[in-house]
Amino acid sequence: MPAPARRIALLNPNTTVAMTDKAVACARAVVDPSTEIVGVTNRTGPPSIESHYDEAVAVPGLLADVARCEGDGIQGYVIACFGDPGLDAARELARGPVLGIAEAGMHAATMVGRSFSIVTTLGRTIGQAEQLVARYGYGAMCHSIYACEVPVLELDQPASEARKLVVELCRRAVEVDQSDSIVLGCAGMADFCTEVADQVGVPVIDGVTAAVTFVEALLRLGLQTSTRSEYASPPAKDLHRPGFSL
Amino acid sequence: MPAPARRIALLNPNTTVAMTDKAVACARAVVDPSTEIVGVTNRTGPPSIESHYDEAVAVPGLLADVARCEGDGIQGYVIACFGDPGLDAARELARGPVLGIAEAGMHAATMVGRSFSIVTTLGRTIGQAEQLVARYGYGAMCHSIYACEVPVLELDQPASEARKLVVELCRRAVEVDQSDSIVLGCAGMADFCTEVADQVGVPVIDGVTAAVTFVEALLRLGLQTSTRSEYASPPAKDLHRPGFSL
Amino acid sequence: MPAPARRIALLNPNTTVAMTDKAVACARAVVDPSTEIVGVTNRTGPPSIESHYDEAVAVPGLLADVARCEGDGIQGYVIACFGDPGLDAARELARGPVLGIAEAGMHAATMVGRSFSIVTTLGRTIGQAEQLVARYGYGAMCHSIYACEVPVLELDQPASEARKLVVELCRRAVEVDQSDSIVLGCAGMADFCTEVADQVGVPVIDGVTAAVTFVEALLRLGLQTSTRSEYASPPAKDLHRPGFSL
Amino acid sequence: MPAPARRIALLNPNTTVAMTDKAVACARAVVDPSTEIVGVTNRTGPPSIESHYDEAVAVPGLLADVARCEGDGIQGYVIACFGDPGLDAARELARGPVLGIAEAGMHAATMVGRSFSIVTTLGRTIGQAEQLVARYGYGAMCHSIYACEVPVLELDQPASEARKLVVELCRRAVEVDQSDSIVLGCAGMADFCTEVADQVGVPVIDGVTAAVTFVEALLRLGLQTSTRSEYASPPAKDLHRPGFSL
Amino acid sequence: MPAPARRIALLNPNTTVAMTDKAVACARAVVDPSTEIVGVTNRTGPPSIESHYDEAVAVPGLLADVARCEGDGIQGYVIACFGDPGLDAARELARGPVLGIAEAGMHAATMVGRSFSIVTTLGRTIGQAEQLVARYGYGAMCHSIYACEVPVLELDQPASEARKLVVELCRRAVEVDQSDSIVLGCAGMADFCTEVADQVGVPVIDGVTAAVTFVEALLRLGLQTSTRSEYASPPAKDLHRPGFSL
Amino acid sequence: MPAPARRIALLNPNTTVAMTDKAVACARAVVDPSTEIVGVTNRTGPPSIESHYDEAVAVPGLLADVARCEGDGIQGYVIACFGDPGLDAARELARGPVLGIAEAGMHAATMVGRSFSIVTTLGRTIGQAEQLVARYGYGAMCHSIYACEVPVLELDQPASEARKLVVELCRRAVEVDQSDSIVLGCAGMADFCTEVADQVGVPVIDGVTAAVTFVEALLRLGLQTSTRSEYASPPAKDLHRPGFSL
Repeated sequence: MPAPARRIALLNPNTTVAMTDKAVACARAVVDPSTEIVGVTNRTGPPSIESHYDEAVAVPGLLADVARCEGDGIQGYVIACFGDPGLDAARELARGPVLGIAEAGMHAATMVGRSFSIVTTLGRTIGQAEQLVARYGYGAMCHSIYACEVPVLELDQPASEARKLVVELCRRAVEVDQSDSIVLGCAGMADFCTEVADQVGVPVIDGVTAAVTFVEALLRLGLQTSTRSEYASPPAKDLHRPGFSL
Repeated sequence: MPAPARRIALLNPNTTVAMTDKAVACARAVVDPSTEIVGVTNRTGPPSIESHYDEAVAVPGLLADVARCEGDGIQGYVIACFGDPGLDAARELARGPVLGIAEAGMHAATMVGRSFSIVTTLGRTIGQAEQLVARYGYGAMCHSIYACEVPVLELDQPASEARKLVVELCRRAVEVDQSDSIVLGCAGMADFCTEVADQVGVPVIDGVTAAVTFVEALLRLGLQTSTRSEYASPPAKDLHRPGFSL
Repeated sequence: MPAPARRIALLNPNTTVAMTDKAVACARAVVDPSTEIVGVTNRTGPPSIESHYDEAVAVPGLLADVARCEGDGIQGYVIACFGDPGLDAARELARGPVLGIAEAGMHAATMVGRSFSIVTTLGRTIGQAEQLVARYGYGAMCHSIYACEVPVLELDQPASEARKLVVELCRRAVEVDQSDSIVLGCAGMADFCTEVADQVGVPVIDGVTAAVTFVEALLRLGLQTSTRSEYASPPAKDLHRPGFSL
Repeated sequence: MPAPARRIALLNPNTTVAMTDKAVACARAVVDPSTEIVGVTNRTGPPSIESHYDEAVAVPGLLADVARCEGDGIQGYVIACFGDPGLDAARELARGPVLGIAEAGMHAATMVGRSFSIVTTLGRTIGQAEQLVARYGYGAMCHSIYACEVPVLELDQPASEARKLVVELCRRAVEVDQSDSIVLGCAGMADFCTEVADQVGVPVIDGVTAAVTFVEALLRLGLQTSTRSEYASPPAKDLHRPGFSL
Repeated sequence: MPAPARRIALLNPNTTVAMTDKAVACARAVVDPSTEIVGVTNRTGPPSIESHYDEAVAVPGLLADVARCEGDGIQGYVIACFGDPGLDAARELARGPVLGIAEAGMHAATMVGRSFSIVTTLGRTIGQAEQLVARYGYGAMCHSIYACEVPVLELDQPASEARKLVVELCRRAVEVDQSDSIVLGCAGMADFCTEVADQVGVPVIDGVTAAVTFVEALLRLGLQTSTRSEYASPPAKDLHRPGFSL
Repeated sequence: MPAPARRIALLNPNTTVAMTDKAVACARAVVDPSTEIVGVTNRTGPPSIESHYDEAVAVPGLLADVARCEGDGIQGYVIACFGDPGLDAARELARGPVLGIAEAGMHAATMVGRSFSIVTTLGRTIGQAEQLVARYGYGAMCHSIYACEVPVLELDQPASEARKLVVELCRRAVEVDQSDSIVLGCAGMADFCTEVADQVGVPVIDGVTAAVTFVEALLRLGLQTSTRSEYASPPAKDLHRPGFSL
């Protein structure tokens, strides 16, 4: 077996290995055989990310993962959580490109239609999604953001009826808000795409797979994050951490 | 030799075969070996596109090319002119995804930095570039647009000193406007990337190669343009064209 | 009879003479007797414009009409289709001012109220209307865009009940969206104004008549399109068109 | 002599009769002979408007003028001061259309180019101009606002060299800021247009003449300010004014 | 009793003393004991402000009050009407800081949540509120503006059921529009806060109390309005006012 | 000595006690004697925050501080770092209001002028500042952001000439960019205010003091962060942290 042409780390910012595995499987199904997907589960942090607090305490572990990957020959990164946690800091640490899945999902959506809606897990994360929509410049294209109110770790439990709820919200986004496509708002929905798309009749985009193919594209293009100023390596500092405890 | 996994048409909206050939060569250098790049030169229209008029008279031929390609098994399209001419109409005609090179270049730029500048050919095309920046949502990220005032067909002539002029404008964009990266504003600059990047020290993006790798990504993702409403097949009509003459 | 003080071409970008005639009649009813309205029907293109494709294939003929009019002493132009097709290219070709009817209708709306809604024909054209709203700067004033889903050429057929449907959508725009006025989104609705206004109680604006009176105003002011850069005459080029066929 | 077809009041919000006379002369030179221009000088307020305070104390007198004109058969109004003072209140009082000259000048500018700059009198009024640019939706088109720092009442004094200073600022706007046209930012510059345009080579727009021809256009179109809600007649109230003194 | 550490004028732009008194009582309940609140009722103008006309005719009296207060040792100002009438002119006249209650209420809202809605009196004032939202930069945070259609002077009459209507609109804002907080849109609602907040479960903000505490904060910080250009003292002028009569 | 009327935690997200002490001294100099300022230095994290990485690794310690303060009767919080790190997460944890110093400084700036500039430490933090400007809605008011390129911990060293450099940049902001006021972009500049203001002649705002007085104001108003959805207490989770190491 030949060495992979490129190695991309799929960083799961939460500590749930099953979520990493699912995302990795979805990613491997779309990338080129010459691309190796390295799944990395955060060793410190919460089992799922559903608040700003969860995100904040997950990020240091995620950045430690990036640092390790840099020493390990990884060329590109995907941050597999829809809040795109730690994106800017990861760009400072990594030589290669880093994409968040919210970012990637929205890029893809604007490539296949004029408008999109986001369907996510808990309503309390909508504020963060709105902030990312604004940051990435897609305020005019994003017609609505809905939450199915199923917690991340229950998405796969049949009792949650998550897929049915997601389909209903997608239909509302298409019929009421006139959205051309749907962006799924959670890495845990990576395997919903085909089923949901079949039922709602418009493109349904999962950010995980979108992100790995876009990182693959950036690597083919030889593009790395600009080191001009903001994303240059951060100044080295002694971190103080006597008995760190959250 | 195995059948290609995917076939992408690289549509040159102008009638200059040499430009198609150069763009195709650049595209082939970045895509996966399993992707076939089919260069298509517009049969009707101007030899280069440097005005709204040029663009308008080039588009019908471009759309005829799309129609032919649809019958010919093409799965994805790139419109290789920085004004992204005919993009919306091509999306109506094609089943597969269609990207313009301005669009793709800007997407790539926002993936590797917070800000970018565009360096293009003639100043008279800046208005169109501004309009595209606004349409794609990148108004806050695009710090400036410069023109080297070299006509498209003179870019490759040493006497034009185009590369030197482009490098100077890139430097201004980086130093004065604090741009993290540069988007080259003409398909005819597709081969400038490496040389310019070396001299200005930030990522330099050519839309042609960005677009083909992104279309490749969309095809891997199984994504097609939404047919919900705007981009559904246009209503069939009898076109009136008695002795058409521009 | 004295020579007209000014001659304005009312350019119908589609090939349906009856639509030109209706628009000309509406225009003549509002302009000064000293203004001559010259109706010009596109000789090539579709019988109505209801898609980006229709628009793209109509524009070259429209530009040929502008070129002919320039040689014929026309001083100002109105493009009588709500997508404002070919507007930028026409401005390059014409010495005198050129207005699209979407543009003119929205200008008028913002002169008589703080907000407006657009009521147009087919839903698939809403994307283009949104794009024009954004381009002209009226995103904050345009509260909604509705489509009656009657094709352009059926607007005048009693069976389509177009006027009734338009009135219903206008009422919704006023009552639900709190719009101060309505812009009719099709040249084929030019004769709906009075009847609709009577029923909905707010100003109802037809872009055709708005555009001719504004062009008349620009001519009185001695204003012509700026030739500074973008709208200067396009560089002369040999167009390639061997057996052009859409 | 036949009765005028329409009567438009040219409201000068300041108390300087010479400014009214100049504006009226400019207006009469562009409108149709069938349009009567009625010059109205504010009876209370400051001799020129160069601050928010000036504007505030000028408005009640201006509104009293509107009330009088309503009783006198006036059909349309122009507020001839570049801050567009009292515009919203005048729209509540008047049946016919009311335009401010800043508003009208900017409308005209966007009809003849993609971008414009404003050249005004005192720098302290730039904030108000910026606010109007934003209100009217022209933030993306207005490339710059310059002040010649000549007070309103000195514009016509040769010693002020106002015309020369204005020409210099216009040139800067065109060459540095890439503006397609210029809007003159003071009713007192109404007679500068031709001279300045000749020297700077782009359209130069005076709001007074733009506004009267646009009001003329609105009257031809039979359009009046919407009375839906905000601009309905204000609720009648007893005003308290015991020995009013500013 | 010690001299007050700071004196803030609470300017009521209308002539209704009872409204001033209520606002002053609300203000005194929140400020530090060392802060003196000086209630000032406009001597000229309408008894309530419910139109652009009301606002325009109230402002000169308000500015006369500011001038008097300047001579009287006042250090900061609140304009207690939700249209923030005369704000810019007052800033020119006053040395110390001047805040409008709409401005202050919105500042406070964005400090305690990501989004807010405004609940005001008459629907005809919504346009002015929208304009202020845009001016202060809060367009993305303001999810909706509702009117209870109770005139200002009837807010305190039990028959108006104003509090009940306001609560209903607040609930709609929270449940339908997903607003994190409510800004009350009238100085006459200053005493509704606690009751409404108890019923709707989100922060409810009265601009009067928000404004006095923010002016108090600015005074503690030693901050005064910038006199750089726009807000410098206005040029002195002789006002013409022979028998002023609105 | 009476019990304090209110207790506000001044959270220093970095680990440098001297910076906490300086900020606390500045804060105590402006708040009411009845307000207790509790300085809290982060126990884990970097000695200064000059990158996204620094910010990310500082936040968990900051949040641990908030959690401790909640158990300790603190009623309001200021995050004393210009990137406003951890703001959203802190709002989830705290009952009382939480303000960042960037946020507070910009609020204050828009209360005393129409426009402001930011003068900060390292150029690499400008991207974060831009993002905050956009988030808080002040894009149109913020005319420029400058960096003096002095690291945070060298601001107080005479050799850095930080004050001189800051004054120079402030002058440029006022004279070239026409800013009405300056916001200092680092908690470490809290004591520069008076000196800089004296030299540049416009209001100069330090976010630390602005934030404490605004939190004081919110406490007087009885306002707390909305717990409607996004800022409700985060779902309780077991954090995984085996040998946490950044």
